Amino acid sequence: MQKLRVESFTISVDGFGAGPLQNLENPLGVRGGELHQWFFPTKTFQQKVLGKSEGTSGVDNEFAENGFKNIGAWILGRNMFSPYRGEPNVNWKGWWGENPPYHVPVFILTHHKRESIEMEGGTTFHFVTDGINAALEKAFDSANGKDVRLGGGVNTIRQYLKAKLIDELHLVVSPIILGSGENLYSNLDLTSLGYKCIKHISSDKAMHLILNKTDNT
Amino acid sequence: MQKLRVESFTISVDGFGAGPLQNLENPLGVRGGELHQWFFPTKTFQQKVLGKSEGTSGVDNEFAENGFKNIGAWILGRNMFSPYRGEPNVNWKGWWGENPPYHVPVFILTHHKRESIEMEGGTTFHFVTDGINAALEKAFDSANGKDVRLGGGVNTIRQYLKAKLIDELHLVVSPIILGSGENLYSNLDLTSLGYKCIKHISSDKAMHLILNKTDNT
Repeated sequence: MQKLRVESFTISVDGFGAGPLQNLENPLGVRGGELHQWFFPTKTFQQKVLGKSEGTSGVDNEFAENGFKNIGAWILGRNMFSPYRGEPNVNWKGWWGENPPYHVPVFILTHHKRESIEMEGGTTFHFVTDGINAALEKAFDSANGKDVRLGGGVNTIRQYLKAKLIDELHLVVSPIILGSGENLYSNLDLTSLGYKCIKHISSDKAMHLILNKTDNT
Repeated sequence: MQKLRVESFTISVDGFGAGPLQNLENPLGVRGGELHQWFFPTKTFQQKVLGKSEGTSGVDNEFAENGFKNIGAWILGRNMFSPYRGEPNVNWKGWWGENPPYHVPVFILTHHKRESIEMEGGTTFHFVTDGINAALEKAFDSANGKDVRLGGGVNTIRQYLKAKLIDELHLVVSPIILGSGENLYSNLDLTSLGYKCIKHISSDKAMHLILNKTDNT
């Protein structure tokens, strides 16, 4: 069975998955980068995203690495793809340069139609304007039997959680207080939605948790 | 300088410090007891609360133990003292038997006047009807120069946080999802209130964080 997985999704102790005021200089919102201090040093991030050869191993890297395993397609919210709102800036091709770290089809939720963009290294950005179910169907279809990874951001994950479409959620709690930003839990009762923590392990930088759905209702 | 400290205050990953529907059978609300799986096995809990001689040492116990050091008085919200609402049940003397684990004056916030109750072992319960500032003043006055510990519950801690009266907050994140209950963070911007995480360490059961106020505004 193909799964929809959220991986390495990081929140502050007070529940924020991104800081406020995202823009070109702050792709993760103000102070949002502080969330990912567990992730940036890992071999997975250093190699897959920055193209370097070094990086840490250990618990943090194991989770980071696992997030890329058996993934045949991604889904991203529009804010994870771009700092622009409204009509698309057709010169914008994501934050990641000519060779993005996906290497599979990436489906971007948006209200604005745009032609698909073929990037180097196997990544193609597709723009989906007919909602989260349609995006998921397209992603599963194009994933060659592999899982689909839902990248974020917070609002997109909330939509898929409310629809009970996420099969497995790797949450990371970073030991910081953000105070404001995009809150994952606000008016969202994960227990009622059927989600439960089935595993947890902490590194010296973060607490990792695996949530899955306990029923299929 | 005397401090107002919150110690060993435990929340779920989704921000709940107690489960819903507190009553006589569920002093911590439904599933609230799951929050404290890091605390119950510790030597501190086993000895101070249950009067036993065994218990675990290690990170969890160090934090639990520290929470009782240099404490000259406690403040509790009424729900931490009693499952009853409205007019007091004068037969009720707390959840802890004849010799409660405080051994100092305990100030209980309530809207209903009641005579102080002297318990065994040095604990006296005082009922304060004139608000959180008055309770804090009384607690500091009676603490013999030591710190005051604010025990909870969630609503009481939120009131003191909003008033910027808490000097140090030991938060514990337990690896569970509660889904509903009493949320610590709802509409509370700890960053704007001046709180920041200055230290963190995880055990295999929980993540411990120390927050303090970065300014005195």
